[in-house]
Amino acid sequence: MSPTITAFKSSPDRGRGLARDMPVRWALDEVGQSYDVRLLSFVEMKEAAHRARHPFGQIPTYEDGDLALFESGAIVFHIAERHAGLLPDDANARARAITWMFAALSTVQPPIVDRGMAVLLEREKTWYAERLPILDQGVRDRLNDLSSRLGDADWLDGEFSAGDLLMVTVLRRLNGSGLLEDYPNLSAYVARGEARPAFKRAFDAQLAVFTAVSSG
Amino acid sequence: MSPTITAFKSSPDRGRGLARDMPVRWALDEVGQSYDVRLLSFVEMKEAAHRARHPFGQIPTYEDGDLALFESGAIVFHIAERHAGLLPDDANARARAITWMFAALSTVQPPIVDRGMAVLLEREKTWYAERLPILDQGVRDRLNDLSSRLGDADWLDGEFSAGDLLMVTVLRRLNGSGLLEDYPNLSAYVARGEARPAFKRAFDAQLAVFTAVSSG
Repeated sequence: MSPTITAFKSSPDRGRGLARDMPVRWALDEVGQSYDVRLLSFVEMKEAAHRARHPFGQIPTYEDGDLALFESGAIVFHIAERHAGLLPDDANARARAITWMFAALSTVQPPIVDRGMAVLLEREKTWYAERLPILDQGVRDRLNDLSSRLGDADWLDGEFSAGDLLMVTVLRRLNGSGLLEDYPNLSAYVARGEARPAFKRAFDAQLAVFTAVSSG
Repeated sequence: MSPTITAFKSSPDRGRGLARDMPVRWALDEVGQSYDVRLLSFVEMKEAAHRARHPFGQIPTYEDGDLALFESGAIVFHIAERHAGLLPDDANARARAITWMFAALSTVQPPIVDRGMAVLLEREKTWYAERLPILDQGVRDRLNDLSSRLGDADWLDGEFSAGDLLMVTVLRRLNGSGLLEDYPNLSAYVARGEARPAFKRAFDAQLAVFTAVSSG
């Protein structure tokens, strides 16, 4: 039986692959695991039936038999643990790949989300012009370090891993900001992720939801 | 041989257990694993020798033989995987505990850190009075959901796990904000964590560094 994930019935990103179901779809496609999708409206996300699966009333969730999980990083890890292809076999390399999973979500993502939220919600505020450069610098501080570490390697630590999958997903949130373009190696890194067949399948699947809803 | 972690030579939190070595110390004490500590100044943290271990020039790191890790969540997970006591044996319960690890760091922590940074850095800004209530509400949104899920249980999902360890660590960052006090079950949850013998040992160890530096 295939697992079931949840996703937005109408994604606020208009199908650009920035919603949190994207890394889960991508991970499932990387390991060749088919899945079902249950689409939720913003109202349904906050109802008790969904909150039983996700205490914070968000997407995605992951259900497989008796197991219900939430939190995209945890779901990607669960998939990576149970299938070959997203974590190295060598114990030390595996621990380092998991480190990059946490680094993507806990260290690189926060300043990127903070900046994105300010652009979305604070554009009309009196402080926007003064705060935006501070937020930009917070993002650049992380990108500087990440770019130095990546150097001219293809992936963060050896073969492509769940750490790269999450890091590419996080960096894609900078699309349109102009910030990533100052780091040619990071831009190429994101492009390498996007060129993977599994990324393309996952991207097309989440875009199809938006297209169907828009035209339906 | 004991692993070696890194910590601040002079912690900016003055030994209140809010630096990121705290969850790593706590996890090591929970499983009864002794460890060595190498203390770093803010200058040493940014030097090449440390950046080879930690690309973002922060603490903590974890070294054990050939293995070098960074990112407190990943280090706690590494400890939890290799010792009994921080993750359940049952596969589904284990996956749910890992979900709470990611939820603590990726969903609950960001609004708490955002608020803390604003209190620290934006107090003199013209926008502080208008922004603080927005940041408070972001924290409350998460605490409302977390409080509802916890209910009157002792821990988030069955026995104490690495998920609780990270969640308690994250919630302790609200000390002094007055926000946690509106949620008696969350306040009691944090107190239960702080009452664990391993928490106390870890707390005393990090406080001893600050006390020694201050008086030395």
